[in-house]
Amino acid sequence: MGEVSKVAIIGTGLVGRGWAIVFARAGCQVALYDGQTGAASEARRIIETSLQDLKASGLIGEPEAVLARITPVATLAEALQGAVYAQESVFEKVDVKRRIFSEIDAVIDSQTQVGSSSSGIPASAFTEHVACRARCLVAHPVNPPYLAPIVELVPAPWTEPETVSAVRTLMEAVGQEPVQMTREAEGFLLNRLQAVLLMEAWRLVEAGLASAEDIDRTVKYGLGLRWSFMGPFETIDLNAPGGIADYARRLGPLYQSIAASTTEHEVWDEALIARVEAERRALLPAEQLAERMVWRDRRLMALAQHKRNVEESAR
Amino acid sequence: MGEVSKVAIIGTGLVGRGWAIVFARAGCQVALYDGQTGAASEARRIIETSLQDLKASGLIGEPEAVLARITPVATLAEALQGAVYAQESVFEKVDVKRRIFSEIDAVIDSQTQVGSSSSGIPASAFTEHVACRARCLVAHPVNPPYLAPIVELVPAPWTEPETVSAVRTLMEAVGQEPVQMTREAEGFLLNRLQAVLLMEAWRLVEAGLASAEDIDRTVKYGLGLRWSFMGPFETIDLNAPGGIADYARRLGPLYQSIAASTTEHEVWDEALIARVEAERRALLPAEQLAERMVWRDRRLMALAQHKRNVEESAR
Repeated sequence: MGEVSKVAIIGTGLVGRGWAIVFARAGCQVALYDGQTGAASEARRIIETSLQDLKASGLIGEPEAVLARITPVATLAEALQGAVYAQESVFEKVDVKRRIFSEIDAVIDSQTQVGSSSSGIPASAFTEHVACRARCLVAHPVNPPYLAPIVELVPAPWTEPETVSAVRTLMEAVGQEPVQMTREAEGFLLNRLQAVLLMEAWRLVEAGLASAEDIDRTVKYGLGLRWSFMGPFETIDLNAPGGIADYARRLGPLYQSIAASTTEHEVWDEALIARVEAERRALLPAEQLAERMVWRDRRLMALAQHKRNVEESAR
Repeated sequence: MGEVSKVAIIGTGLVGRGWAIVFARAGCQVALYDGQTGAASEARRIIETSLQDLKASGLIGEPEAVLARITPVATLAEALQGAVYAQESVFEKVDVKRRIFSEIDAVIDSQTQVGSSSSGIPASAFTEHVACRARCLVAHPVNPPYLAPIVELVPAPWTEPETVSAVRTLMEAVGQEPVQMTREAEGFLLNRLQAVLLMEAWRLVEAGLASAEDIDRTVKYGLGLRWSFMGPFETIDLNAPGGIADYARRLGPLYQSIAASTTEHEVWDEALIARVEAERRALLPAEQLAERMVWRDRRLMALAQHKRNVEESAR
């Protein structure tokens, strides 16, 4: 990033705090705003702990320098003043989102662009009524965004192309990996891909073909390895001597046949959920969930460090 | 492994060679057999090169010791004599598989169990006619099995349970991660999960919603990170405060709605394949495919090393 930019974080829950780290780590001045009094200051204290963990994993330099760029502010106007970009991460309800976009609209500078962390609701559902709507879009992260760099940029029908490209440039500048949809679709890209795999995973358990544990193992010791550094298209491109067209002609019919053979049961019903939950709780008691989430974040940090090392050594 | 076991490798192409490394690395005596004269000796020479690469990545000790346990043999009878287990990896055609199982049946010891590397054809399609069929099943690996530890065990209706459990124990003893299906299903587990995700990926490109490249990025910078060490069920189990049941009740309806909204176009048609191929070839020219496959294997090796390190340091 050339000059120091100011970014506003609107909503300082788990997602907003993650974004604050992303922008401050990259050198931006970050204003933290939350509609609930005291929440922004509390968020900054939680961020301080997260920064210590990141430092311990070698993923950032000095936490103090990063933290010094993060400032809780008392009003939305103060947060947005002079900001090049605002990341909205309020509660995922359409009326809550509509309301905060009205409030943003009342005080926003004419140049500020606004990305919503919405994981499911498209921007068209909560920005139609605001004057600044051409500068609004969805910028959906994966949690926590400072470890999983993906961000999905999804324009509403009225989002201007310049906004998409400017937010893309900003996200790249702060170290994220933006992907772009041409228009809105339910679940965007990431959750659409996750949905079809999860649906099949539940179906396989429902049909009694395998345990949930063995399905997890199939992914973590098999499919997920390549996908963690190549994605599905590059994986098949390298899986036939003649590349992806060769692969598609050989295996397309098999995959279509498999997809056609998936049952259309009502899945995720209570009995099935109870079965899979019982299996999970046998592997991981409920009281160890929080501890295992810490383990997951450490693994994500170690994986991020690993990916950075191999990518740097390949240069 | 307690005492040194003998394993027969039947078919010494890419897959068979990978299996030879798995078993020899773990201390088994490995007999290499291929119906084509000279192929087994040639395979041993290729294995020697692969072992050098593995040594360079720190994934095995001395290549010489591993190689010393691998012996090309001239006949199937010689390969099978005294073997606790045989891994069949001949060409993926049902008549070819049927024929080799007839040949195996004619000379097999009464205790030897046989796993087929078949990636799509179930064991019921090529073992029904043989006397040893109760000791036959599918043991489907991902390539190369010495880097991706998953192996899918899929019994035919006549496979005895003792065979499944003995092969499971053997696979665990040699460092693989077996998963078990209760009965046959097209594509087994891994390719069923891959199929549904790939189908959706092609559909998203077909609908013009995103580029193939951005779909790959969505997986490699997002979804694939957690999946590479947790799998899909543990991922959602840790993605809601109350675990998987909490998650399923909150997000089940969204996923069902997404799955219901997938179009049922005829996909992978020639025009679509040509579009995605053009996009891939712009990113990776055809003449660089082979080089990129070497890169992929190095990345898989580095990832295997990384996973081993973090898992060991967690003990």
